[in-house]
Amino acid sequence: MSCNHTIHKHNHHLGWDNAIDPVLSVAPGETIAVETIDASGGQLHAQATLDDLKALDFDKVNPVTGPIYVKGAEPGDTVAITFQAFHASGWGWTANIPGFGLLADDFPDPALHVWTYDTGLAKPAVFAPFGQVALKPFVGTIGLALAETGQHSVVPPRRVGGNLDIRDNCLGTTLYLPVEVAGGLLSLGDTHAAQGDGEICGTAIESPMDVEIKVDLIKGSQSPFPRLETSGPVTNHIDQQGYRITTGIGPDLMQSSRDAVRQMIDWICATSGIAPVEAYMLCSVAGDLRISEIVDMPNWVVSFYFPKSALG
Amino acid sequence: MSCNHTIHKHNHHLGWDNAIDPVLSVAPGETIAVETIDASGGQLHAQATLDDLKALDFDKVNPVTGPIYVKGAEPGDTVAITFQAFHASGWGWTANIPGFGLLADDFPDPALHVWTYDTGLAKPAVFAPFGQVALKPFVGTIGLALAETGQHSVVPPRRVGGNLDIRDNCLGTTLYLPVEVAGGLLSLGDTHAAQGDGEICGTAIESPMDVEIKVDLIKGSQSPFPRLETSGPVTNHIDQQGYRITTGIGPDLMQSSRDAVRQMIDWICATSGIAPVEAYMLCSVAGDLRISEIVDMPNWVVSFYFPKSALG
Repeated sequence: MSCNHTIHKHNHHLGWDNAIDPVLSVAPGETIAVETIDASGGQLHAQATLDDLKALDFDKVNPVTGPIYVKGAEPGDTVAITFQAFHASGWGWTANIPGFGLLADDFPDPALHVWTYDTGLAKPAVFAPFGQVALKPFVGTIGLALAETGQHSVVPPRRVGGNLDIRDNCLGTTLYLPVEVAGGLLSLGDTHAAQGDGEICGTAIESPMDVEIKVDLIKGSQSPFPRLETSGPVTNHIDQQGYRITTGIGPDLMQSSRDAVRQMIDWICATSGIAPVEAYMLCSVAGDLRISEIVDMPNWVVSFYFPKSALG
Repeated sequence: MSCNHTIHKHNHHLGWDNAIDPVLSVAPGETIAVETIDASGGQLHAQATLDDLKALDFDKVNPVTGPIYVKGAEPGDTVAITFQAFHASGWGWTANIPGFGLLADDFPDPALHVWTYDTGLAKPAVFAPFGQVALKPFVGTIGLALAETGQHSVVPPRRVGGNLDIRDNCLGTTLYLPVEVAGGLLSLGDTHAAQGDGEICGTAIESPMDVEIKVDLIKGSQSPFPRLETSGPVTNHIDQQGYRITTGIGPDLMQSSRDAVRQMIDWICATSGIAPVEAYMLCSVAGDLRISEIVDMPNWVVSFYFPKSALG
């Protein structure tokens, strides 16, 4: 690695708290190699079983590496993070965790899929016995510290970022985050080898990675929420064969999202023979939730796009 | 044209009503050339002004050509429509119509943009003085008759389709609609030269076109909502230079959608100098509303993707 700094994965924390001491200070323009732990906090691994999932201790989930103090960053500024390299581990997990996920009521039982994949990312990861998922590693959780004191759960994203799960926080993208405390206090983790828009079952291909980032500072400029710029197309790794699309139509976007995803699960099961919970997990890592129209009162259309490249 | 049938645009109707007599009966597998009128019902045109928009009679909007009786279609079946050709008119309009659109409260005044574009679709349509939009014609409104008797507004889409505004009902796509009455009673109109996911200002590039479709029938199989299959990528006409992305984060998907779009309008205005309402209309025809995550309780992330190719 040729970065200015390295942070090893033992320098992680659980939850967000602006009282956590920085593990590194960097000047704007510097680069950092960041080791991460998977979202289970190391409780799941390449040989993990359903019993390991059932024993998961939620107090240890979603560790983030950091915090990184950005020299000169003050409230009202923006920290810009550019993703320069991902070094993938070659394994990952996807789970249905009871009580968590868009269709938690439909899928009350735990399920686990452990993946192995080509670290060169050239080949899709196989989802035996049916399906394959083209890989695009990204950082699921990345954020700054909140101005509010105390410990804040790592689960919800907030205006300063956090568990954003925006699958385009990937190679070449620059992410802009609003600064609320001196130094910003940047942390990241929860790296994913692939995920669709929505992360509908609640997990992606959860996979530990080393990530190289460049950190910049924009003084005196702030947007109220995170912004990104991508360096190119965002779906050309999956879209060449087109999509199956299902819809949910009605006055509630959440209900319509559920309707659209339920139908895609039905469609995949009807043509593949896999179990619904398997289709649900496959949808989470490969399919995209889009709002097709949000203006034709009183019914909006939410569409779920599943790439045909992931079929078969 | 080499279709089996042609329906001229005078054969249109306003609203949905299963008592409207079919203008054509077709056998499954046959093709139809369908002329359409723009969503204003001909009230706006290539020389239209803001005064024409202000005088718009809403009782005449969104005419659809049809209905088409599909021989053999019965309740419980599915009608499949494949879009085989679009013959574009070379002009279109986009408007902010007071009281309509995702940000109706922010933009109370009417605004109109009239476009001219290359009917060969090879060049983006210019949005003077700033912006350009790659074209991908599609059918905004396409649906079957509802089982419920009486007249139903054309504005909201429903389980049998209608004003879906799914921008991938385009060349090569097959749309599947559930049949509720004998013959299905297919009608279509509201053609668009381009639109982003969400149609956030309430209008696209509204442009009359002739559309060639093939109609098929799938007996005894039905999904509760419309489904589609695309024949290839859905964003490769706009995505080569990447995207600007803004986010809205919180527990309400509608509010987050508004937050994300408002920020993109701010971002475009800050770098272009165009008026906010112009940026709003440009976002509607070029930008995409996606749900990045819908599982990290209690805050969801809605992202608005604006292609850099549409800037400048």
